[in-house]
Amino acid sequence: MIYHEFIYIADLLGVAVFAVTGAIAAPGKRLDILGVIVLGIVTSLGGGTIRDISLDLHPVVWVEDTTYLWVAIGSSVAAFFASRHISSPRRSLLFLDALGLALFSILGLQKALAAGAPEEVAVMMAVITGVAGGMIRDLLTGQIPLVLQRNGELYATCALLGALAYIFAYSRLGEASPWLDISTMAIIFISRMASLVAGLQLPEFI
Amino acid sequence: MIYHEFIYIADLLGVAVFAVTGAIAAPGKRLDILGVIVLGIVTSLGGGTIRDISLDLHPVVWVEDTTYLWVAIGSSVAAFFASRHISSPRRSLLFLDALGLALFSILGLQKALAAGAPEEVAVMMAVITGVAGGMIRDLLTGQIPLVLQRNGELYATCALLGALAYIFAYSRLGEASPWLDISTMAIIFISRMASLVAGLQLPEFI
Amino acid sequence: MIYHEFIYIADLLGVAVFAVTGAIAAPGKRLDILGVIVLGIVTSLGGGTIRDISLDLHPVVWVEDTTYLWVAIGSSVAAFFASRHISSPRRSLLFLDALGLALFSILGLQKALAAGAPEEVAVMMAVITGVAGGMIRDLLTGQIPLVLQRNGELYATCALLGALAYIFAYSRLGEASPWLDISTMAIIFISRMASLVAGLQLPEFI
Repeated sequence: MIYHEFIYIADLLGVAVFAVTGAIAAPGKRLDILGVIVLGIVTSLGGGTIRDISLDLHPVVWVEDTTYLWVAIGSSVAAFFASRHISSPRRSLLFLDALGLALFSILGLQKALAAGAPEEVAVMMAVITGVAGGMIRDLLTGQIPLVLQRNGELYATCALLGALAYIFAYSRLGEASPWLDISTMAIIFISRMASLVAGLQLPEFI
Repeated sequence: MIYHEFIYIADLLGVAVFAVTGAIAAPGKRLDILGVIVLGIVTSLGGGTIRDISLDLHPVVWVEDTTYLWVAIGSSVAAFFASRHISSPRRSLLFLDALGLALFSILGLQKALAAGAPEEVAVMMAVITGVAGGMIRDLLTGQIPLVLQRNGELYATCALLGALAYIFAYSRLGEASPWLDISTMAIIFISRMASLVAGLQLPEFI
Repeated sequence: MIYHEFIYIADLLGVAVFAVTGAIAAPGKRLDILGVIVLGIVTSLGGGTIRDISLDLHPVVWVEDTTYLWVAIGSSVAAFFASRHISSPRRSLLFLDALGLALFSILGLQKALAAGAPEEVAVMMAVITGVAGGMIRDLLTGQIPLVLQRNGELYATCALLGALAYIFAYSRLGEASPWLDISTMAIIFISRMASLVAGLQLPEFI
């Protein structure tokens, strides 16, 4: 019960965070506000939609529960106005993107496991749910996707790391819990931020 | 009966119009004709395919009725040859794109409502059906999508405006009619053209 | 039985080949290895996923049989390391891309026919399965897709040619056979390579 609510709120938080990254990634402030909302919606709901459709889980999450849609719209609009008063959109974008990556990867993993998918597929869904929305955002705004940039940072690696840690711990614990979720989300978020801040990267030979 | 035929023809007209925008957006005239057809098909059937798959409406429209496929192919081929004799492809593209936006938005809205989707989801599907094909076209030809360009024109706003007008009028009238369809399509087309021609845009503070 | 195995191996070979093209198309060698794997997976499984979802064939091929996922990952990793010692990635990419195009087009055609799709839809699925993965790869790495490049080469035309030859021969023979598959795949591969090497293209008026 309470766990269910925790998951639901984490999911909506992920939507809000990704919608904001979409809104502030928009190329220039003279953009039509609806364009900003479209970008926010696609960024925040794109990954989960691909996951649900690939696993044949219908209705798709935002078709069943329109709260997702309203959170995405509200966050985009708020970000649109707030972005005039925040001076470092690029840094905010990277921070929020890392948070969304952490939330969505673990939640995507859980939904795939709950749908009976094999573990490899669930890990794949974790990465898809975490990175696909951001990839679409970067494509639409004419950027090479963060996940593919050549700056040697970790990105998909962080999602993979957290997903594998979750699978391992879950097989030992035998049950889901908010602590497991939070600690594996923390692995993803911290490894991503560490990579950004400290230049942490895979060894040269990899 | 006659209303059904009106919808069907309007849908095929939308396919034809978007296929033409795909074909004339192709980067240069030395393009393989099949490449032009691929671009025409993706532009004209992409939005509807995303809508049908998201709503779990199977078979997808062009799988069930191959007329859609033939109209897309025929229009692309015709546009490919005609584009050698028309001097202002850019202006034609914007005009046809506005027409396709109007047709597909309202038809997408109706299909979503007919499938039992909530009104917010239906409005979302109107915008998706109207703009997704053109977004894919712009991505594939290496352009920032029209919907996201920073020139201050209205684009997604027009589709939204028409969709909201439809929902409002439909709840009052209680029944669908060609006049309702045509007048809401006109709202979209005229607001988009007005925005292009007269530089109509949202107020500065938005 | 043996024919089934032939198809299965050809399909996995197509996955391996496209995964390699994804991996070597990655923009620069300092890319995170997971980024390379993501690109390899999307390139090799993207086309088939779009096909399966459009035809409502669930579970999607790599959800049902995770061998596909492992082949894509293994090939991407191998290509990642091998690409340091191969001097002409561009030429390798075009060669492997042509091979993948041939394999996936014919296999996509067969799956669509087996699912009861009309012949036009099956031909469309052949082209989608053959070209979509490569289009996504090119989009993600910031290139105009090969299928749309203005160099006058044949690309989608080759897939179409092979698919039409298959449909024609199949209606005469009345049964599937490895020889039919291999010969129509050869038509695609050879016409594509001929177009690349000898500059073969459609007549000027087309």
